[in-house]
Amino acid sequence: MDNRTELEQLGEFGLIKHLTQYFPIEHKTTIKAVGDDAAIVEIPEGEHLVITTDMLVEGVHFDLMYTPLKHLGYKSVVVNLSDVFAMNAIPSQITVSMAVSNRFSLEALEELYAGIKKACEFYKVDLVGGDTTSSKSGLVLSITALGMAAKEKIVTRAGARESDLLVVSGDLGGAYMGLQVLEREKEVFKSAPGAQPDLSGYDYILERQLKPEARKDIVELLSSMNIQPTSMIDISDGLASEIMHIADQSFVGCDLYEEKIPVAPETIQAAKEFNIDHTTAALNGGEDYELLFTIKPSDYEKLKGNPSFSVIGHITNEAQGCRLVTRGGGIVALSAQGWDALRAGI
Amino acid sequence: MDNRTELEQLGEFGLIKHLTQYFPIEHKTTIKAVGDDAAIVEIPEGEHLVITTDMLVEGVHFDLMYTPLKHLGYKSVVVNLSDVFAMNAIPSQITVSMAVSNRFSLEALEELYAGIKKACEFYKVDLVGGDTTSSKSGLVLSITALGMAAKEKIVTRAGARESDLLVVSGDLGGAYMGLQVLEREKEVFKSAPGAQPDLSGYDYILERQLKPEARKDIVELLSSMNIQPTSMIDISDGLASEIMHIADQSFVGCDLYEEKIPVAPETIQAAKEFNIDHTTAALNGGEDYELLFTIKPSDYEKLKGNPSFSVIGHITNEAQGCRLVTRGGGIVALSAQGWDALRAGI
Repeated sequence: MDNRTELEQLGEFGLIKHLTQYFPIEHKTTIKAVGDDAAIVEIPEGEHLVITTDMLVEGVHFDLMYTPLKHLGYKSVVVNLSDVFAMNAIPSQITVSMAVSNRFSLEALEELYAGIKKACEFYKVDLVGGDTTSSKSGLVLSITALGMAAKEKIVTRAGARESDLLVVSGDLGGAYMGLQVLEREKEVFKSAPGAQPDLSGYDYILERQLKPEARKDIVELLSSMNIQPTSMIDISDGLASEIMHIADQSFVGCDLYEEKIPVAPETIQAAKEFNIDHTTAALNGGEDYELLFTIKPSDYEKLKGNPSFSVIGHITNEAQGCRLVTRGGGIVALSAQGWDALRAGI
Repeated sequence: MDNRTELEQLGEFGLIKHLTQYFPIEHKTTIKAVGDDAAIVEIPEGEHLVITTDMLVEGVHFDLMYTPLKHLGYKSVVVNLSDVFAMNAIPSQITVSMAVSNRFSLEALEELYAGIKKACEFYKVDLVGGDTTSSKSGLVLSITALGMAAKEKIVTRAGARESDLLVVSGDLGGAYMGLQVLEREKEVFKSAPGAQPDLSGYDYILERQLKPEARKDIVELLSSMNIQPTSMIDISDGLASEIMHIADQSFVGCDLYEEKIPVAPETIQAAKEFNIDHTTAALNGGEDYELLFTIKPSDYEKLKGNPSFSVIGHITNEAQGCRLVTRGGGIVALSAQGWDALRAGI
């Protein structure tokens, strides 16, 4: 970067003001945003508030060696909004807190906030608060997202019933394979600094990893199709783990069909190259931010054949547990080996 | 500690479940707490939501050498609730996110959460969500608090008008002097490990530093006295800085009378000992978590003589700026040299 402005030149209040000055307020429910002891939000009559929060730690959740700060800002908002959509709600406001070491210049944080702003614009959410402080090492981001929905529209993980169909949006495993490519190129770079990373041909899976989107379109589509999911969750830790969350909280079992799991050709190709089973990437890879939900059997006709959705299994009774029906017709118990931030980092 | 359970034995989901299992849900507005993609909150008709967030970083905001983890948990909730009270609202829910290194055992986090739970119980707020992840170094806490109030009751920093009276609750400078005592004993300990800290006689100011309370009682008292502040802020960064926030956002000036600033005898005593002017401790020390507010002159009779309040000045016009009228009758421009987390840490 050409210019480097040290953070201490601005101080805490100056920094927040500087970084948030170009964030417009668009949501009519935002009564007061950044700048007071607290933000003020109006909840329309008949609606409930949903609130979710995620913490992202440098070296655990992201590696700045291959994550551009603007992408990091964008993704850190998206992962929170994904949780709001998973409640069948529409996100409306976020707060962004950040601990940052003096390794970062003002210009670096401007990049980060440019990504945050881009996500706010795309998803039409307002930045209404946050906190900025120093850190002894690295960057820690903590984002909280608010959303709203009519009370009767909100969907939890707990409503799946026996014989409901299990449906997933988009395709799975791509973000995980993108990460493998980035990690490989990082190792190449470490052993031969100056080597140009070879990322050509991996556009799709790299975008899945570096610039995921939250499925706002799916929530809107379900609404327009008049489908009210009986349960829903977003896929952040891998399909297997998320299915088991729904099963646990709904007190049901589930049969998942391997052959029905949607995996993109680019993901299958990369999995082959890395000698990874692509079903494993889909089941345990995580970070796809697709929506996994259950619907009543009577709603099947409404989404049958729609390319946005794959029906991948059905809900059984609790005693049966969660099972994977393999391509060969075998039946194995599903186990969650999803990405665990705590195990991964410690 | 007798037992040490490593965090990786539990994993992320196990850890959250373990730490939050004894948190009861008490608030009728909490529809769904921990355990889904997001928590669900109901906002009563006619009320607005307020939301505030704070990030606390080890080595910047707290020093575990002299901060017991239980106190840290308590205080980290209190500082957020204080912001909710500063809006004249009543806190209802919090989320707690935490990045933690493997230096911490499960038992240490249980202590931290015991403090968080104690604050939740005392202030009647529900823990409804959060995130737990690993950190490469130290402990980072990010807490978000929600509160509610009737729309017309909410008070911002922007409503002060010329001739309004400036009022503060409790007394000031104590938390800062408590910190000086703790820092002194830390230095003694570092030069002579094993030395017993000499903390006797400092109970009041140590409690102000280590176990501050948010002034819920003041918000309730003002309501019962039928006083609606015209502006309000909590004192986290020092009286001077907070007065200037109100002045800035209300487009007014302010005359503050040094002789009216409430300082406890224990604080004055410690200030003498440390050769610190106690007015400076009150103006710039911070962390007192008292409420600073303005009232219409016509409300003066309602709180006159009430020992919970001190009238310390009055609002003037913007051109006059913020001024301190000293004990000797001199007039100096007020300047904010409050505790700046960014400058302090970098």
